[in-house]
Amino acid sequence: MTRFHGVVPPVVTPLTKDFRVDYPSFTRVIEHLLDGGVDGLFVLGSTSEVVFHGGDERRKIIEHAVKINNGRVPIFAGVIDPTTDRVIQHAKVAQSAGADALVVTAPFYTRTNQAETIDHFRYVREAVDRPVIAYDIPVCVHIKLERKTTVTLAREGTVAGLKDSSGDDGNFRFVRQDLADLPDFFAMTGSEIVVDNAALMGAQGVVPGLANVDPKGYVKLWRLTQAGKWDEARKEQERLCRLFEMVWISLGRTSAGSAGVGAFKTAMQLLGVIDTNTMARPQRSLNAEEAGAIKAILRGTGLLG
Amino acid sequence: MTRFHGVVPPVVTPLTKDFRVDYPSFTRVIEHLLDGGVDGLFVLGSTSEVVFHGGDERRKIIEHAVKINNGRVPIFAGVIDPTTDRVIQHAKVAQSAGADALVVTAPFYTRTNQAETIDHFRYVREAVDRPVIAYDIPVCVHIKLERKTTVTLAREGTVAGLKDSSGDDGNFRFVRQDLADLPDFFAMTGSEIVVDNAALMGAQGVVPGLANVDPKGYVKLWRLTQAGKWDEARKEQERLCRLFEMVWISLGRTSAGSAGVGAFKTAMQLLGVIDTNTMARPQRSLNAEEAGAIKAILRGTGLLG
Amino acid sequence: MTRFHGVVPPVVTPLTKDFRVDYPSFTRVIEHLLDGGVDGLFVLGSTSEVVFHGGDERRKIIEHAVKINNGRVPIFAGVIDPTTDRVIQHAKVAQSAGADALVVTAPFYTRTNQAETIDHFRYVREAVDRPVIAYDIPVCVHIKLERKTTVTLAREGTVAGLKDSSGDDGNFRFVRQDLADLPDFFAMTGSEIVVDNAALMGAQGVVPGLANVDPKGYVKLWRLTQAGKWDEARKEQERLCRLFEMVWISLGRTSAGSAGVGAFKTAMQLLGVIDTNTMARPQRSLNAEEAGAIKAILRGTGLLG
Amino acid sequence: MTRFHGVVPPVVTPLTKDFRVDYPSFTRVIEHLLDGGVDGLFVLGSTSEVVFHGGDERRKIIEHAVKINNGRVPIFAGVIDPTTDRVIQHAKVAQSAGADALVVTAPFYTRTNQAETIDHFRYVREAVDRPVIAYDIPVCVHIKLERKTTVTLAREGTVAGLKDSSGDDGNFRFVRQDLADLPDFFAMTGSEIVVDNAALMGAQGVVPGLANVDPKGYVKLWRLTQAGKWDEARKEQERLCRLFEMVWISLGRTSAGSAGVGAFKTAMQLLGVIDTNTMARPQRSLNAEEAGAIKAILRGTGLLG
Repeated sequence: MTRFHGVVPPVVTPLTKDFRVDYPSFTRVIEHLLDGGVDGLFVLGSTSEVVFHGGDERRKIIEHAVKINNGRVPIFAGVIDPTTDRVIQHAKVAQSAGADALVVTAPFYTRTNQAETIDHFRYVREAVDRPVIAYDIPVCVHIKLERKTTVTLAREGTVAGLKDSSGDDGNFRFVRQDLADLPDFFAMTGSEIVVDNAALMGAQGVVPGLANVDPKGYVKLWRLTQAGKWDEARKEQERLCRLFEMVWISLGRTSAGSAGVGAFKTAMQLLGVIDTNTMARPQRSLNAEEAGAIKAILRGTGLLG
Repeated sequence: MTRFHGVVPPVVTPLTKDFRVDYPSFTRVIEHLLDGGVDGLFVLGSTSEVVFHGGDERRKIIEHAVKINNGRVPIFAGVIDPTTDRVIQHAKVAQSAGADALVVTAPFYTRTNQAETIDHFRYVREAVDRPVIAYDIPVCVHIKLERKTTVTLAREGTVAGLKDSSGDDGNFRFVRQDLADLPDFFAMTGSEIVVDNAALMGAQGVVPGLANVDPKGYVKLWRLTQAGKWDEARKEQERLCRLFEMVWISLGRTSAGSAGVGAFKTAMQLLGVIDTNTMARPQRSLNAEEAGAIKAILRGTGLLG
Repeated sequence: MTRFHGVVPPVVTPLTKDFRVDYPSFTRVIEHLLDGGVDGLFVLGSTSEVVFHGGDERRKIIEHAVKINNGRVPIFAGVIDPTTDRVIQHAKVAQSAGADALVVTAPFYTRTNQAETIDHFRYVREAVDRPVIAYDIPVCVHIKLERKTTVTLAREGTVAGLKDSSGDDGNFRFVRQDLADLPDFFAMTGSEIVVDNAALMGAQGVVPGLANVDPKGYVKLWRLTQAGKWDEARKEQERLCRLFEMVWISLGRTSAGSAGVGAFKTAMQLLGVIDTNTMARPQRSLNAEEAGAIKAILRGTGLLG
Repeated sequence: MTRFHGVVPPVVTPLTKDFRVDYPSFTRVIEHLLDGGVDGLFVLGSTSEVVFHGGDERRKIIEHAVKINNGRVPIFAGVIDPTTDRVIQHAKVAQSAGADALVVTAPFYTRTNQAETIDHFRYVREAVDRPVIAYDIPVCVHIKLERKTTVTLAREGTVAGLKDSSGDDGNFRFVRQDLADLPDFFAMTGSEIVVDNAALMGAQGVVPGLANVDPKGYVKLWRLTQAGKWDEARKEQERLCRLFEMVWISLGRTSAGSAGVGAFKTAMQLLGVIDTNTMARPQRSLNAEEAGAIKAILRGTGLLG
């Protein structure tokens, strides 16, 4: 088993203007991230607009990433859909398409609880031959993976890691302490703005959507934390926080989902990485005025001249 | 266009012990409901465990219902998945499989807003040639269809009706008043326990999951409300409320989702309608002790001797 | 003990422009309500801006209401503050000031649970010699009085009634059914817009803030429901719903609290009942433009020529 | 103006068995904290059960703390009640009783918004001659002080600091960055378990309820962070996290509020600081079995032999 660590961005899925996956742009995204020095690629996460894509497209996305990556870093694939057996179907596809690890959320739409959520992870893990990463994202699935749930799943070997996008840093700390004797447990924060904190608490990785825009920044930040250079880390984190301000620019006109990923896509278009900032339907893409505001942020943070 | 009205139960999807759809039992469920006098059948709703089934199975479920129903009542089909284009794919299948109307929720998992939700319904409606019913179920999708959203969609002809499972009776009343000049707008309550109230406020239909257990009770209740016999209606509603108590029996051991539909399935098994009370994974099925408690309720409400 | 029933408005507390209680206007409010035929007066409720007034002012408000009312209808007094012993202090004052019944919420600010909430009501009831009405208002105290809590308190004689402002009509119905053998239990809805529904489910009273504007309307509505004239009741309810639209006029510029009570005060000023529409600090009062919109609503519902 | 900084515990208010403030024990609490090296005392905070005490008792509590402290460290006094003018009344009392700074929350019970909340702080500040600290505690008041609200109030000089008990570390970081040019703005975290993180982000102080049990631990932790000894800080923070586990021991039998402060009181009784672990009504005090579990934690973290 690969030992996972470091910066693992959730890879944006670029679209053409008529809402198809833009694979040439996708190739460039992957090279842009690998050039930036990232330690893994997480395809088909929330930032990748995973739930907007059906099963066939998901297979192609993984296969494309695996081909372009060509073994340089581990590939994590999100296998995200409302319920167990549908997740298992995605998981089998992801495994056969070459993913190194599978990222699984709690069930959603259905109203579940911790006990059934534990069973959910067990069923998925039993059905495949890849490590499973638990993805705690209550803002999307509306249930929190409680400390005891994560610890139970980790201790019994069902999950090999945690991507914590819950914003509950205290809980993350307790999970880390509870599992201090499992050095291979891959605990990642999903936050872009408290990466230094997470590292200080013992996170072994980070999954920043914003790294699609500035992979080098996040790699630098992470390396600084691993070297114990906390003051420099903080300075870089604060620069990245200023960059992060882009996610609120279209809020109100667009939903929170569109505002965040839409901003990343717009910035990546401005940086020449992808061809359009098109968002999957029914999300709204950012308009020219909003793109202007993002350009100003890119300049203010040193990403555009 | 069919003029819709009355009792339209969300049809339970029976499973075999190994988690496959049990079509012989499904046939009996449909006959049980039609014998009870229902005015429509809503397949692939939340009570039908729709999000546990993939696209191929969903097609078979609709086709089976259409075949068994054989034109006796209108068939409503839920086309429920997180995002627009996946919903459209289900919608096209449902149309070709013979559904008379399509039931659509707001997007979920993704964080959407009212404006993008309005676009979502428009995109779906444009892609098919069947009336679309808006399904307001914030407990599952975590966004409420606001009064203005529903009224906008209704006035422009995008949606032909509303299934309101939000529990916000005041909002339902305002929507009814706002659309009083659209007599064909099919406004249904999704509640089992305030059907008389909804009828009093001008609902034209009801979608009670519990009608899978006692279709005759809900048909009687609805007929009484339409005849203005409010005291008798209340008495029947109160009997059905006692029956509804089954949905809390397993709560705690199981999730809320499993507790409700699991209770319906258990009661239907006890009544000889279906073969097992198996729930789709990772939900827990009710156990023997819980089935005993349900049997007592069935006896107390006159459904078992 | 008085047998309570019918329309019991939460009485608006008028203020002068410099934020003092305007007792001459308060006298006119009370006469306006009694002229309208109401069956009780609820002073110091949420609509009365109770939590904006200290203990001394609260005593004066009750005493004034008792004096003006002069025994015509029962006086209910809200004794609302965060914790038990402070509520008891208010309760003793209210009793000595002549209140006929005391209205008590769950504790707030502190994070409580059902068990401690039950104890809270018991402690208050033991400390005074007046019937206690449980006031279920989760939008303010952020805990729901669960069905079992209310039923426990009612059966043991701790509470003599319930004012349900939770909006959970299904729960209200179950409480009514559970307590069907306690005919003196005074169950009231706090909603302005589903009074006919509540009556149909067996409510024995209603506490409509909007009755400050149109007491005759609510008295008429209530009498129609008690006479079983449901169609006429619905018509009157729908007129009152159109009147209720005033509560959203200033929303956004003001908070929800200011928007609702502020609209009532503005309408009462326009009707000549009170002198100002001043709201207690830090709430914002409605402005001239908003008052114009309210005037239009008063005309459209027959309250202004 | 005093330059505030460092560890400022919210001081527990000990009670006798018959629910009166136990001033001899209170004296010992203060000496225990000052012996531990704390940099300030925050009386009448949430941990002090502030909302359980009326105005007269609150005055005595402040006066007692001021007398015992005798100028050794700054005294912060919570002036916490639902609405503006009642808060102002408390604030004037606190000022005359000798408090050095006043801690103010957003209004509660009433449904307010950001604009009215800003006005609330302005009205309070204008009425007194002491610095005002904004207290962000949505779990109690159910509204978040948004970034823009805090920054507006800080820039205009209305508030001199922030106690952030919201758990939203990302927001805290942005506020810190926005106010980086105001070095005297006193930004404190209210969390016990992420103090190192908060310090890393530039917090200038911490308000840990758990410091009532182990003031020396928090002083050590804070000093380590200020010296940039992050690894040692983390180790001490992790020990304090194990100590913090006490707050969940009675959860379920008691409310969350009782479980936390009740655990602190129980530990302080076991350590000989206070005489009883009595909680204000209707909260439940911890029982003997729960005290046993807390004793074990005190032993495991080196506080009891």
